[in-house]
Amino acid sequence: MFQESVTLCPAHSSPEAASEKPLRVGLLGLGTVGAGTYRVLTRNQSLIRARTGRSIAITMVAVRDLARASAVVGREVTVTTDPFALVTHPDIDVVVEVMGGTTLARELVLKAIAHGKQVVTANKALLAEHGTEIFAAAQARGVSVAYEGAVAVSIPIIKALREGLVANRIEWVAGIINGTSNFILTAMHSQGLGFAAALQQAQAQGYAEADPRLDVDGTDAAHKLSLLAANAFGIPIPFAQVQTEGIEALDAADMAYAAHLGYRIKLLGIARRSAGGLELQVHPALLPQDHLLAAVNGSMNAVMVKGDASGVTLYYGAGAGSEQTASAVIADLVDLARGIGLAQALRVPPLGFQSGALKELPPAPDAASAWYLRLHSMDVVRCTAAALQALAQAGVGLRSQHPFCPSSHHAPAALVLLTEPIHTTVLRPLLQRLAQLPGVVGVPQAIRMSNLDSTPAARWQHS
Amino acid sequence: MFQESVTLCPAHSSPEAASEKPLRVGLLGLGTVGAGTYRVLTRNQSLIRARTGRSIAITMVAVRDLARASAVVGREVTVTTDPFALVTHPDIDVVVEVMGGTTLARELVLKAIAHGKQVVTANKALLAEHGTEIFAAAQARGVSVAYEGAVAVSIPIIKALREGLVANRIEWVAGIINGTSNFILTAMHSQGLGFAAALQQAQAQGYAEADPRLDVDGTDAAHKLSLLAANAFGIPIPFAQVQTEGIEALDAADMAYAAHLGYRIKLLGIARRSAGGLELQVHPALLPQDHLLAAVNGSMNAVMVKGDASGVTLYYGAGAGSEQTASAVIADLVDLARGIGLAQALRVPPLGFQSGALKELPPAPDAASAWYLRLHSMDVVRCTAAALQALAQAGVGLRSQHPFCPSSHHAPAALVLLTEPIHTTVLRPLLQRLAQLPGVVGVPQAIRMSNLDSTPAARWQHS
Repeated sequence: MFQESVTLCPAHSSPEAASEKPLRVGLLGLGTVGAGTYRVLTRNQSLIRARTGRSIAITMVAVRDLARASAVVGREVTVTTDPFALVTHPDIDVVVEVMGGTTLARELVLKAIAHGKQVVTANKALLAEHGTEIFAAAQARGVSVAYEGAVAVSIPIIKALREGLVANRIEWVAGIINGTSNFILTAMHSQGLGFAAALQQAQAQGYAEADPRLDVDGTDAAHKLSLLAANAFGIPIPFAQVQTEGIEALDAADMAYAAHLGYRIKLLGIARRSAGGLELQVHPALLPQDHLLAAVNGSMNAVMVKGDASGVTLYYGAGAGSEQTASAVIADLVDLARGIGLAQALRVPPLGFQSGALKELPPAPDAASAWYLRLHSMDVVRCTAAALQALAQAGVGLRSQHPFCPSSHHAPAALVLLTEPIHTTVLRPLLQRLAQLPGVVGVPQAIRMSNLDSTPAARWQHS
Repeated sequence: MFQESVTLCPAHSSPEAASEKPLRVGLLGLGTVGAGTYRVLTRNQSLIRARTGRSIAITMVAVRDLARASAVVGREVTVTTDPFALVTHPDIDVVVEVMGGTTLARELVLKAIAHGKQVVTANKALLAEHGTEIFAAAQARGVSVAYEGAVAVSIPIIKALREGLVANRIEWVAGIINGTSNFILTAMHSQGLGFAAALQQAQAQGYAEADPRLDVDGTDAAHKLSLLAANAFGIPIPFAQVQTEGIEALDAADMAYAAHLGYRIKLLGIARRSAGGLELQVHPALLPQDHLLAAVNGSMNAVMVKGDASGVTLYYGAGAGSEQTASAVIADLVDLARGIGLAQALRVPPLGFQSGALKELPPAPDAASAWYLRLHSMDVVRCTAAALQALAQAGVGLRSQHPFCPSSHHAPAALVLLTEPIHTTVLRPLLQRLAQLPGVVGVPQAIRMSNLDSTPAARWQHS
């Protein structure tokens, strides 16, 4: 009898007691995000415990450079150069992957899962490319993989989609989800800089990396869009389906012409379910200047979600930054710390839907889009006449035409044509035809006119 | 032996099996929100099950009018006119209170808790006034009281504060959190309507109730602000501390003058922690027209949150509506359905902090504010001179002065003075003095200039 009452002693068996043990976190990587996570967890330790009812402690860090690590973390943290030792260590409850990359990171995350660790990551490339494999492994092992920091860093948009808006049939998700390209576009618009100069400014101010390709070619936005789409629609991560176009070919002059016509050019990620299937696009587009997303500037991000019950909601915040990303990483850790044991950790499935309920959606057929077309010409009057004739011959409707005079007589004038919606199969030969018109200089520019929701709730300036 | 294996049969004891039982919901009230909740739950039933892994079924409704109820809900729902029978019924897991009011609703919610029911409510007045009592009762009984629909309906802002931003020391929360008054102010601004006419329009379009007092006098916003503040700062619900001022005294002319000077007038709720304590205010204020919150129009709501790690984030969406509120009510139900048993339901405490960790914050001493002052005068030149003298005598700095000419010679001119920050102890005698100046007609108007964050992230038009 005495024995039995000892075994049942509350101090050993009650959930309250279990919840008082700190959550022991191992950090893979101590770059910008890793260091920010350690800093915020340390600074707000007592606040986070007051909210969580449990301490969260980074107890181990795997890095390449031991000396650098010891300058960042305190002596209570074990530092190792062997990430495999960390992900398999018996005293680690959660592995936080903030090292980046997709090869070693994938291997380490899978190993951590195999060893029964919970995983938190801010690595959108990893999940966009290997998420299906990783989530399946996590489900089989009964652990969770959380990734709030992977999309629109400081904005809790994954939680909003999976929990806050859970009642809704999501119609579409659209956003500005790459801070670097938005910083560049904002600089091009407001300072009249060319793409290269704006990119340089972004690099100088820390908003673009030395190798900015994934940011400016739309890939990073496509990574994030595929995670948003999976959570919104209950589909396997559709990264391979995203039609992606970057901002490298944009010209400051077009931003000025667009502004003159009442538009802003933004790099949008759009995931929309239509009768024909799933539309998944990352591309620059003209937005009316009073559209919610047209007003998101600098390195800020915003995501709009249209639900059948909620209507339009919008989430806005920093799109990059050390502590901004840490805010999301720690939110994931608190979700785990507030759970007691594995069953609770799986409270919300990785893509917001029960894994058996995920269903592919076929890609929608190419949707017609209105286009902004711009030609340069030394003889804008003749050029306009010829261009209008070319449009008529191609059966393309014209919404409006706008000549822009050159600043000097030796420079070409610009002719902007806003078309009615057409398919790209019509657009491509039309652009070839326009390039060959007499007097046309250089390559015509073609940018989509956004067909995002423009109801009052999606605009700032309505009554 | 046989007996024992039956008792342990997985179909009866495993969490998976338990999670397959539908969550049985009893609805108190079948007005706009109740009917919307039933409609959305029914329409999106299979979607919600795919996300939740469990069905959610409204099995009982308590209403005053049986006939009306049967027109709304299907035959599978038990309808009663006895709400006490519902909250004590053994076959109900969750009580959803959407009946409104604070007397009977309080009694029913406490009774439901006493009977071990989980509670979901969208009733901000109930929680602002009786939340401390209700949450204590819920904690003692081990059940949860969820209320996402009580603040900024469709926007998952309670979840964002308690979970998404959990890593942050919140510096301030500010928002437009009353859709009715924002609709009225937008109509006054964009159509030049007076307050009474704009209110009538709001009533005609269903954005204001027959008795609009709690909306236009700021009380409703104060209810919501006190819930936001409690979650942001870890304090007991501070409704009694909110300094509240409504929009009834605003004039369309002042909105036009403010617009001319580059400002919008909005009803703001602001909760800010400063060295001196806690600032809690609901009042109309002038915001720069490119401020994030200045652009929130019609019945839309938005909440900005400044966290020490996240920086500024913003959440925007419908501030009223049947299915918009249902979206939040159902999100709370899904949180419960995703839990297994009571321990999980308490995963996140009602105010986001462990109940023992809640701490009062003293009210901050009256902060100085810059003011928009407007006088009407038949002789604006003399009036300006006298007014400037009065300001100088009161030791009040002047930022700028703006005469606005009348449309006819028989109407008075307006003089707008924008002051440097002053305390209300200085403002009140100054206003009395200004009212007595020779030639001044009517009562001078005084509206605060907002001192909300105006860093680039809080503005639309930055580079």
